[in-house]
Amino acid sequence: MKLRAIVFDAYGTLFDVHSVVLSAGHGIPGDLQALSRLWRQKQLEFTWLRSLMDRYEDFWSITEAALRSAVRLLSIDLTGPQFDKLMQAYLAPAAFADARSALETLHGIPSAILSNGSPTMLNAAVRNSGLESCFAAVISVDRVKTYKPSPRVYALGPETLHVPAEEILFVSSNSWDAAGAKAFGYQVCWCNRAQEKMDDWGFAPDFVVSGLDRISTQ
Amino acid sequence: MKLRAIVFDAYGTLFDVHSVVLSAGHGIPGDLQALSRLWRQKQLEFTWLRSLMDRYEDFWSITEAALRSAVRLLSIDLTGPQFDKLMQAYLAPAAFADARSALETLHGIPSAILSNGSPTMLNAAVRNSGLESCFAAVISVDRVKTYKPSPRVYALGPETLHVPAEEILFVSSNSWDAAGAKAFGYQVCWCNRAQEKMDDWGFAPDFVVSGLDRISTQ
Repeated sequence: MKLRAIVFDAYGTLFDVHSVVLSAGHGIPGDLQALSRLWRQKQLEFTWLRSLMDRYEDFWSITEAALRSAVRLLSIDLTGPQFDKLMQAYLAPAAFADARSALETLHGIPSAILSNGSPTMLNAAVRNSGLESCFAAVISVDRVKTYKPSPRVYALGPETLHVPAEEILFVSSNSWDAAGAKAFGYQVCWCNRAQEKMDDWGFAPDFVVSGLDRISTQ
Repeated sequence: MKLRAIVFDAYGTLFDVHSVVLSAGHGIPGDLQALSRLWRQKQLEFTWLRSLMDRYEDFWSITEAALRSAVRLLSIDLTGPQFDKLMQAYLAPAAFADARSALETLHGIPSAILSNGSPTMLNAAVRNSGLESCFAAVISVDRVKTYKPSPRVYALGPETLHVPAEEILFVSSNSWDAAGAKAFGYQVCWCNRAQEKMDDWGFAPDFVVSGLDRISTQ
């Protein structure tokens, strides 16, 4: 099948969500790895649950609520400035080392981001990582006020790029996101950075790579 | 507000999901508490994700897939008969000790179950715990082919009981379920057995009790 565009997930795929606590967590007492994991888990749970409730709030609000929940659950004492510093760091997560090289080898194939992030968060993350020139479009779920893995979200890719889903390669490191994109109809590459095991969704990815620089469009 | 009916969540509220591994896990090598926790977590995640994907499968299939996922993630070696025994035990989870006494004190107020469980699973659980006579209705999400916390699920309570949601007390031990029911419009009692912290959904329960026998309808 001909490949006419590539759509990337952002958080976990292009940007390392765990870089946030790493870069802005200095001086916070407690297990910062546990904080980073639980923050991420709560963030995802809240997107799923609010989508199902039909009670959308944008990803910035969800990320704040998830941080509050995580620190409460872990009984971590966070000052106001420490909280704000962590949230601000979410505007500049580190890009994975393989992201730029991967994007630069995709000569001629239009690339886009399709992400849960709010437009403000995504634009900041792309700008702060110097990747602006790599993307033809940065698409936020905010346009449809629900979250992945809703088909309404995945539909934004073909709509925006004017390319049918089956001619787009969707790349995500999040296994449930890869499954959702496959269920929708994309060609799917699961970037399995952490050598995880894919749950049995019945929607297996077309390709599995260990890093973004292993994607071949030939 | 007048109270004309009570609707109970099943798993975690009336029935102890962790009793399944406890009763049927003998001889399985590994951390059985971790297995029970991860099985439950995966089960819930799969209901949320499949609902969002519009790829409903019934709760029996989801529970099987979640068990397969949990044993794979924990690298537990499970024989076929051990797997089957765990699944069969899901048809007879232990009722919490306070469930019967609570149900018997609700003289004259019709009670129902509204649960993610498939009709077969729910009927078996109710029969095996001897609670059949306590319920005017046992309602499964299977009728609408999606899972909690979708408003389409919560709507089944008022529809079945012919009582408006605001005159029904919805009782759940699952905090996100309590939040979803409140967002829909029920009066809500969160049975906070484990002294957890409620996440900040903006839909606080009307009542919080530490056990089902603490529910007062006066």
